[in-house]
Amino acid sequence: MTEPLSDLAAPPFATRHIGPSDAEQTRMLEAVGFESVADLVAVAVPEAIRAKDQLNLPVAASETEVIAELRALADRNQVLTSMIGLGYYDTITPAVIRRNLLENPGWYTAYTPYQPEISQGRLEALLNFQTVVSDLTGLDVAGASLLDEATAAAEAMTLARRAGRSKSDVFVVDADALPQTKAVLATRAEPLGISLVESDLEGELPECFGVLVQYPGTSGRLRDFRALAERAHAAGALVVAAADLLSLTLVAAPGELGADIAIGSSQRFGVPFGFGGPHAAYMSVREGLQRQMPGRLVGVSVDADGDPAYRLALQTREQHIRREKATSNICTAQVLLAVIAGMYAVYHGPEGLRRIARRTHRMAVTLAQALRAGRVEVVHDGFFDTVLARVPGRAAQVVAAAAERGVNLWQADADHVSVACDEKTTLAHLEQVAAAFGVNVSLTDLVAEDALPEGLARESDYLTHPVFHTHHSETSMLRHLRRLQDKDIALDRSMIPLGSCTMKLNATTEMEPITWPEFAGIHPYAPVEQAGGYVELVETLEGWLAEVTGYDAVSIQPNAGSQGEFAGLLAIRAYHRANGDTHRDVCLIPSSAHGTNAASAVMAGMRVVVVACDDNGNVDLDDLDAKIAKHAEQLAAIMVTYPSTHGVYEETITEVCAKVHAAGGQVYVDGANLNALVGLAKPGEFGADVSHLNLHKTFCIPHGGGGPGVGPVAVRGHLAAYLPGHPLHNGSPVGPVSAAPYGSAGILPISWAYVRMMGGEGLKAATEQAILSANYLARRLAPHYPVLYTGRGGLVAHECIIDLRQITKETGVSVDDVAKRLIDYGFHAPTMSFPVAGTLMIEPTESEDLAELDRFVEAMVAIRGEIAKVADGSYDRTDNPLRNAPHTAESLVADEWTHPYTRTEAAYPVPELRDGKYFSPVRRIDQAYGDRNLVCACPPLSAYED
Amino acid sequence: MTEPLSDLAAPPFATRHIGPSDAEQTRMLEAVGFESVADLVAVAVPEAIRAKDQLNLPVAASETEVIAELRALADRNQVLTSMIGLGYYDTITPAVIRRNLLENPGWYTAYTPYQPEISQGRLEALLNFQTVVSDLTGLDVAGASLLDEATAAAEAMTLARRAGRSKSDVFVVDADALPQTKAVLATRAEPLGISLVESDLEGELPECFGVLVQYPGTSGRLRDFRALAERAHAAGALVVAAADLLSLTLVAAPGELGADIAIGSSQRFGVPFGFGGPHAAYMSVREGLQRQMPGRLVGVSVDADGDPAYRLALQTREQHIRREKATSNICTAQVLLAVIAGMYAVYHGPEGLRRIARRTHRMAVTLAQALRAGRVEVVHDGFFDTVLARVPGRAAQVVAAAAERGVNLWQADADHVSVACDEKTTLAHLEQVAAAFGVNVSLTDLVAEDALPEGLARESDYLTHPVFHTHHSETSMLRHLRRLQDKDIALDRSMIPLGSCTMKLNATTEMEPITWPEFAGIHPYAPVEQAGGYVELVETLEGWLAEVTGYDAVSIQPNAGSQGEFAGLLAIRAYHRANGDTHRDVCLIPSSAHGTNAASAVMAGMRVVVVACDDNGNVDLDDLDAKIAKHAEQLAAIMVTYPSTHGVYEETITEVCAKVHAAGGQVYVDGANLNALVGLAKPGEFGADVSHLNLHKTFCIPHGGGGPGVGPVAVRGHLAAYLPGHPLHNGSPVGPVSAAPYGSAGILPISWAYVRMMGGEGLKAATEQAILSANYLARRLAPHYPVLYTGRGGLVAHECIIDLRQITKETGVSVDDVAKRLIDYGFHAPTMSFPVAGTLMIEPTESEDLAELDRFVEAMVAIRGEIAKVADGSYDRTDNPLRNAPHTAESLVADEWTHPYTRTEAAYPVPELRDGKYFSPVRRIDQAYGDRNLVCACPPLSAYED
Repeated sequence: MTEPLSDLAAPPFATRHIGPSDAEQTRMLEAVGFESVADLVAVAVPEAIRAKDQLNLPVAASETEVIAELRALADRNQVLTSMIGLGYYDTITPAVIRRNLLENPGWYTAYTPYQPEISQGRLEALLNFQTVVSDLTGLDVAGASLLDEATAAAEAMTLARRAGRSKSDVFVVDADALPQTKAVLATRAEPLGISLVESDLEGELPECFGVLVQYPGTSGRLRDFRALAERAHAAGALVVAAADLLSLTLVAAPGELGADIAIGSSQRFGVPFGFGGPHAAYMSVREGLQRQMPGRLVGVSVDADGDPAYRLALQTREQHIRREKATSNICTAQVLLAVIAGMYAVYHGPEGLRRIARRTHRMAVTLAQALRAGRVEVVHDGFFDTVLARVPGRAAQVVAAAAERGVNLWQADADHVSVACDEKTTLAHLEQVAAAFGVNVSLTDLVAEDALPEGLARESDYLTHPVFHTHHSETSMLRHLRRLQDKDIALDRSMIPLGSCTMKLNATTEMEPITWPEFAGIHPYAPVEQAGGYVELVETLEGWLAEVTGYDAVSIQPNAGSQGEFAGLLAIRAYHRANGDTHRDVCLIPSSAHGTNAASAVMAGMRVVVVACDDNGNVDLDDLDAKIAKHAEQLAAIMVTYPSTHGVYEETITEVCAKVHAAGGQVYVDGANLNALVGLAKPGEFGADVSHLNLHKTFCIPHGGGGPGVGPVAVRGHLAAYLPGHPLHNGSPVGPVSAAPYGSAGILPISWAYVRMMGGEGLKAATEQAILSANYLARRLAPHYPVLYTGRGGLVAHECIIDLRQITKETGVSVDDVAKRLIDYGFHAPTMSFPVAGTLMIEPTESEDLAELDRFVEAMVAIRGEIAKVADGSYDRTDNPLRNAPHTAESLVADEWTHPYTRTEAAYPVPELRDGKYFSPVRRIDQAYGDRNLVCACPPLSAYED
Repeated sequence: MTEPLSDLAAPPFATRHIGPSDAEQTRMLEAVGFESVADLVAVAVPEAIRAKDQLNLPVAASETEVIAELRALADRNQVLTSMIGLGYYDTITPAVIRRNLLENPGWYTAYTPYQPEISQGRLEALLNFQTVVSDLTGLDVAGASLLDEATAAAEAMTLARRAGRSKSDVFVVDADALPQTKAVLATRAEPLGISLVESDLEGELPECFGVLVQYPGTSGRLRDFRALAERAHAAGALVVAAADLLSLTLVAAPGELGADIAIGSSQRFGVPFGFGGPHAAYMSVREGLQRQMPGRLVGVSVDADGDPAYRLALQTREQHIRREKATSNICTAQVLLAVIAGMYAVYHGPEGLRRIARRTHRMAVTLAQALRAGRVEVVHDGFFDTVLARVPGRAAQVVAAAAERGVNLWQADADHVSVACDEKTTLAHLEQVAAAFGVNVSLTDLVAEDALPEGLARESDYLTHPVFHTHHSETSMLRHLRRLQDKDIALDRSMIPLGSCTMKLNATTEMEPITWPEFAGIHPYAPVEQAGGYVELVETLEGWLAEVTGYDAVSIQPNAGSQGEFAGLLAIRAYHRANGDTHRDVCLIPSSAHGTNAASAVMAGMRVVVVACDDNGNVDLDDLDAKIAKHAEQLAAIMVTYPSTHGVYEETITEVCAKVHAAGGQVYVDGANLNALVGLAKPGEFGADVSHLNLHKTFCIPHGGGGPGVGPVAVRGHLAAYLPGHPLHNGSPVGPVSAAPYGSAGILPISWAYVRMMGGEGLKAATEQAILSANYLARRLAPHYPVLYTGRGGLVAHECIIDLRQITKETGVSVDDVAKRLIDYGFHAPTMSFPVAGTLMIEPTESEDLAELDRFVEAMVAIRGEIAKVADGSYDRTDNPLRNAPHTAESLVADEWTHPYTRTEAAYPVPELRDGKYFSPVRRIDQAYGDRNLVCACPPLSAYED
């Protein structure tokens, strides 16, 4: 034989990413009734939107090649010792946590814990995080994390506005606040009509609804803000403290000083820099404000057996319910990073954290003493970890000298240099720093007094819960992580068929580079010449995303889809304003839209006008015409999701775009469903002006159990000038929407690797398979459940909706019952009751192989059989396997079995479950009980006793 | 405050490694009745053996520092493209397998599957490996892996000797066999009186009991050995084929050509070089020889419900049962590496493997064609992956030129260079190679014919089992690995309290570096200047181990404890011979010794004489005197374990040593129990001449589910010259005992990091805690179970034996019942019936914290309560929770419950089990059934149907 080498090449990565083999694909096509994928796509995807050309991307590289290319990029990043500070501090990620949590698909591939029964592990971990935050900040209720410190500050600002007594439109911000915080506040304040006033907070407080104090300040200054808080409260304003968690182990808690709200970053609790993110921000509030908090909140409730169980509390606050009445557009949290920060606290315990903080402080005072000894002026007397030195005219020179010695400092201005100490700082580092200042003293002989101001010493306890005193050996921490992981369903167990969430493979080769030190260890404000690899990676990725979407420019700054939406709408707003169209403020949104759309529009200062949908879930063109006519002069934009939230390629999309454009509006296409388009159609070509993408959906960034996400915004050329800027990076008429210039840069290698390994052909093949798989499921399930919406040829796009309303009406079996019963079959439920109440939306993605799809079908068919038994009376209407699902092992093994169905019917309805069945750790959780009896921190152990 | 920075230093790694906190230690001391650890040690450890000085080791470094130091060492290794071959070939470890198996403590911290019920995951994986080997070699039964190809060849030699009809003492070895194979065969042959004859196998076959043919040969040559096999069989000799697994996807299987035994390496199935190891060797045999096979064999049996279940088959073959009648001293396998190789085959499937092999072959023929085109002579016409080129007088120059171009070739001699292709070879590599030969041709235009000899084409199927056709997407492989992992108990779930096996923490920081490319990617025969980091690491580690043990020299070459024993005894043998004491061949072994000791002695050409033990398990000094007197002139050595296999510090050890020395013998101290000595006593100082250590016990190399191990041999100065050598490395009167010069070098960073992070004080503290923990358990268990052996003060060393014989006699409840019942409580059983039948030996190690020790005590006490119920008749004597243990979830959920005890008693005997209980995947396995009905390859799926 002499077959050519090309025939013998390793199969492309796409064959590993895409679940079904060629043979399986053929069988699926037969079931759906097509000869080829091309035939299927030709019918399913409207000709009008089809892209004319193949994607112009580099030819797919192998996994080995991509690792080599990323290695080369990594080697162009230079990891210096970072003493830059400004909200980001170096930290040691305990290796046991890195390997068994950050690098463990059991943790990182999990979805948001909307199905709490199969999320008890990460919910417990998040409760630990909330306890850390509320304990350290001295406030009553902490949330399950926010996107970054700057956006958390913005959320606190709007919370203060809606919760406070003041009618003022002024929000006062500490002049010593982080520069990125000030900039994001400004971006957020303007569309909402909030006046931002910067103040040194020393004199009179202007009339305002709230004030933010940085504690300690950016300059390192640590001050007692009790008096300020009293003044603010007297004026009816709320006090927001942006506080450093590590410092709070030594100094009085914000809550003790009078803060109503605390926000900040938990990055330095074991989460690497990642050139800016992702990290978990936090927010905590005093009693009374918790129902106003943005984002997610984990609470304790009880399950059907009355045992304690965790779940997301107060979900009615969330944007997907409230739409334009939402108080925030935040959908996601930074779960993976919050869990790491919480585990860092669990591993160190309060004594360990205190020792780290004390040592950090000792390093700072030692440096200050050394500088003073060398006749360098130290500006502040009271500080925690950051020393601000005054070196008239010499700041740049000192920073350069330090960099030559391997240390990055921060040039505050021409005359000032700040130096931030952290967990990793050693005397050797300080010697280099001192030398950079031209100071040569022996540090070991120095005796330096503490620089924590009188009266600010922390006296209250923190982290008294046993969990912070139990897992201090590596063995114990390892088992703790395993025990929690085992409670949950993630992609390493079974498919997570969530509509609109695209839970596809997060390949190991994509994931490995993110924990390499050269990607993990770069401070977001490191000199750009030290981040050459990152900058190239970002620019390349932005270019590829532009090619994939058909837009002209992309910004990867938004660190969640919600922020991408907001940035996109800000671009539209700025564009209209630049054209003098300041009156254009109406945003049309179809009734089927995701609630975030409306919330984002409101945040961008727009008025939401709802456009009706027809019975098929498509935009009602008559109503669209009417709404355009009514608001023609004010029309700013329309926001549509494509394919629609109903999982259908609307035939009229080009018409919709044309109508809006004709009226002077801009078209925003929500990229949530981009997995149905990549390689087949480009929003930027078929009529849209702007989209956000979800790299954590279509581009393989794992969901992390509920974050991180990355939500780049992509625009056509006329909007390119209005992409987000950053005060420490590049200017833009629109300010930043995230704290860091490149957002969550640390996880961009994932999407880079995905595109690089798939190439244009692979990406297209993935989309085609995703469409085929959804249609295969629809076809297989249709005999058992009505499929709600279909497009041309009776086809769906990449997801399908099955309708349970008639079933519920006839049998009492609800969507909830089916979803929870799927747990007994080992599956995560599909999306429940979105976009239509009483339905399940199923998105299989291209990564699931035929065996898994068939296993899911088998489960759904078996469940339909159970429903039939309820209908025909074989099963009791209230005591049946559906209503009682999920069944815990404990409930199945109970000595007394009182149900009218058998244990086997409950536990092993299909025989495959006998091999390695997953048992839900709790029974069905009582949501209402938890909201009535809100407990959001670790409960005492006695709560678990009978 | 101005506390010194030293008070604020991060707690040393030892506090993470050692489970109990200071406070817990205090409580444990109270329970044992001592004021301090020093007091306890003073009573427990005989004064006569106590080391005088602290260990002279570098001060403990932090985890961060150690990673930096290892990074610096790694950077001194230079990873070139390896085309050296000689039994080691570059390969791509699929990332999903690396992360979720090789880097996953759920796999690597597991113990040997002696408790098959909690080892079904890795047993299934090993069965896959066996199926790969038996399918590809075309032989009936394959074992679960051996240590390396060279020792596998030696095992095959001795198998052939005992199984064949020939009375000859001659073993013929192919002149084209691997040099390390020849050398290890020589080491093994000489003490056993086997004459090794090298032959080109072309002419007449000398009279012999066996012949080994390398297929393909070291020179690349691929030949049909059918005729040779016929000649051998006619003469009553067995044929051993040392075969390359990848080549077997294309060429006829050894079994098809007449081989009786096949051996080889599975390294190139996804296992990195690691500078020589660890890798899994394989052995397969034709029907009829399986009961003669050395090492472990996984077989299929049934559990108590009649369901298929996996277990180690034919365990009576093992050395711990047979002692000096053992046929091999092999205890361990290379489970982790065998599992990787098996998974590699599962992930690629037969088509994928075939494609890799074809491509590798195409590369080789392309190179050969290019060389010929450039007028370089290619020696062989038939070859698979290796091209031998004749370049008279130029070989060194060509090799050097290639190295300059980033490729390592092999200089076979002054006139020949061999070039081995592999999965990673590209045309770009071949161009560099050709250029190094001075050949500049365009490779893309070359048309080269296959070089697989006529008549050798593979025609038989392989890997037809569904498992090799199912998990080809990354998602499916990920879930397959998770599903198997979840069946097993490893250290990430609970303690594994195995006496003499020291299942301590395998810290992440120790584990991380081994998969760094600079450690993983170095060929064992890479030029030494490319392995500077490795060489320094090895030399440093050998020095530290010498310091810890009090010896003068250490060799880390032996890649298992058994090989270390063998090497130690060879050193003694060589020493006596060098002194003219050729008659000294008696090895005294106490009756309590591990069976391996005797087996190793026999392999080293010694006669075993058993010394009695007294009722306390100590060496009977009178009997020792008698045996010495009887064998004085022949006395070669005594082998003792210290502390004894009974877990006691024998007071008489120094006396024993003195008596043996006085008679001219050498003292071998088995280092299996070194965890009771480190930092407190040094065998090399208290009287021993040689020891082997188990880095996989005392020095934190994980057990990998049953391998790898590393068994360095340590000797006093007079034996240093007789440590193992290596033909491609350094000379020694004693040849190599492992294939690679540095044995399993790839995992030595683990032990290096452990010693470096613990420092002398940490190591000592670990030993002290191990002793305290064992005594704590003994004290807590004593009221419930008799503790069998104790030393001074009623204390044990680092493990304790509880005696169930009286209980068994009175109640019928056996050691087995208690061991299997512990599974229901979530624990791996202690060591069963060793060293005394009817007992359990418990070693908690220092890494278990007090909560885990107490949980174990609680389980044992609860089990004692269950036994009491059997005794008093509350429980039926044959139908009780002990006899029926372990209980699967399925058996607990059965609709009919026929047992006289309740489901709750069976499943949740203690309330803590209600949180995350582990359910055994099978019920108790019928060992006898499996041996009677031996099935050692993947059974068809129909076997699992009811």
